[in-house]
Amino acid sequence: MHHFDRDELRKSSAVLFETPASVRFQDIDAAGIVFFARIFEYFHACYEQLLEKSGHPLPQVLAEGQWAAPIRHAEADYFSPLRFGDTLQVQIVAAHVEETEISLGFRILRGQEATVAAVGQSVHTFISPETRKRCPVPESLVASLRAS
Amino acid sequence: MHHFDRDELRKSSAVLFETPASVRFQDIDAAGIVFFARIFEYFHACYEQLLEKSGHPLPQVLAEGQWAAPIRHAEADYFSPLRFGDTLQVQIVAAHVEETEISLGFRILRGQEATVAAVGQSVHTFISPETRKRCPVPESLVASLRAS
Amino acid sequence: MHHFDRDELRKSSAVLFETPASVRFQDIDAAGIVFFARIFEYFHACYEQLLEKSGHPLPQVLAEGQWAAPIRHAEADYFSPLRFGDTLQVQIVAAHVEETEISLGFRILRGQEATVAAVGQSVHTFISPETRKRCPVPESLVASLRAS
Amino acid sequence: MHHFDRDELRKSSAVLFETPASVRFQDIDAAGIVFFARIFEYFHACYEQLLEKSGHPLPQVLAEGQWAAPIRHAEADYFSPLRFGDTLQVQIVAAHVEETEISLGFRILRGQEATVAAVGQSVHTFISPETRKRCPVPESLVASLRAS
Repeated sequence: MHHFDRDELRKSSAVLFETPASVRFQDIDAAGIVFFARIFEYFHACYEQLLEKSGHPLPQVLAEGQWAAPIRHAEADYFSPLRFGDTLQVQIVAAHVEETEISLGFRILRGQEATVAAVGQSVHTFISPETRKRCPVPESLVASLRAS
Repeated sequence: MHHFDRDELRKSSAVLFETPASVRFQDIDAAGIVFFARIFEYFHACYEQLLEKSGHPLPQVLAEGQWAAPIRHAEADYFSPLRFGDTLQVQIVAAHVEETEISLGFRILRGQEATVAAVGQSVHTFISPETRKRCPVPESLVASLRAS
Repeated sequence: MHHFDRDELRKSSAVLFETPASVRFQDIDAAGIVFFARIFEYFHACYEQLLEKSGHPLPQVLAEGQWAAPIRHAEADYFSPLRFGDTLQVQIVAAHVEETEISLGFRILRGQEATVAAVGQSVHTFISPETRKRCPVPESLVASLRAS
Repeated sequence: MHHFDRDELRKSSAVLFETPASVRFQDIDAAGIVFFARIFEYFHACYEQLLEKSGHPLPQVLAEGQWAAPIRHAEADYFSPLRFGDTLQVQIVAAHVEETEISLGFRILRGQEATVAAVGQSVHTFISPETRKRCPVPESLVASLRAS
């Protein structure tokens, strides 16, 4: 399983894909900052946008049942707390593609100064929903990560 | 569709069912109190406990597919904000049973003083998942509301 | 406290404000449809957009502390289940303004057919955060509801 | 920053702390299994129980303002999907204590067979809320991890 170095993600000059995001009123916790697990929701929303761009919107993927891509691993490093009202840019700054698995490296920039607030990564294993056996990563998704 | 008066719920001397609850760290919003929509999660958890007590745990109901009970209406009245650390008692203080529909009246008490922090209600319509047609409310659920 | 009739909201020809929304992957419940309480998050996101349009973005409102608008009542009527992939239009179709309180009537349309999937309403009481006493509804917010 | 090996967590014979958990109706995603980010909520609930056991319930920690423990890193490995109705045991199976930082290793067991469904870890940095400078991990929390 591929693993990105957090500093590699933090300083990456490549941006394969990106999408804006915002902190919701209800994403805050009792400490007054974004609840740490919400960041994985920001990552996933970006991943869903990537799927859509590659011609595989997730609702369609689920309806067609040709493949599924369960998450095998997810992690995040937090550098600076996010607050309500923060405008975010969620970026995919690294991708590692294997035959039946992809690893995506994320970065979250905050505000106009584009401070790196967090980085993270997820590993998605491609399987046939029927047989639960591994299947190839869809070509167009790979292309979409390369063409960025 | 039956509707309970909010003062009736607030002052009800009947408690048909009750279960403790607590405010989660991540239930808070950017205003520092429980996000208003979370209260429906507290109501629903209580409803799930009621189903379990009546011999119909919701996971089993979904698996068996004999009936479903989609929510047709839900509402809440907020008297006093809830905060992280509050210990709650979620009560069903009123029930109106029709042939294919039940209305449940909820009340949330906070802390040792048992302050009424909120009341609410939900209307559940019983249907056959296959035909989507109305079906009778399960007898044991009705009994469970009566026997309390 | 003002209360809108659900049929009035359903059939309203007025649209005071509207904003698109989408069902998130994680908004679904174990019955395979949008968890009923999520609809209040869709309503609230629309309300936050309205605040922004009226010159009072909620993060700024919270930071300035001139007024707060706690929710005193919220309700929803569900006509048709929402599913992952549904594109929604969240509309404010009615508003009732009193000196220190507003009631907003919401409607959610689904897909290109613009099926009314749900309606709802919320009552917001305006208070001074310091004294907790009632204060007037900001003029620009009232104007924003009228000018639509 | 300490990092536990996932196999070490999976096979650990030590259980420093554990607490039951259950999958909520609304923890499910559109793929019909627990949304991957929810697992961090299960970990955090266990961590909060640990804090309470050590004499530092989180609401009190936040109220007193003596120290805060923001999460610097969080990760999870998923071995088997969780579903609605699953009964879980959330365990802390490893702890690494430094002067101003702790790393906790989690494991989630499912059902009576106690299948390892997932493991994970979080790194908490102890700071003074006022100065934002690092401060020692509270002794009683360390003791609580040792005494288990």
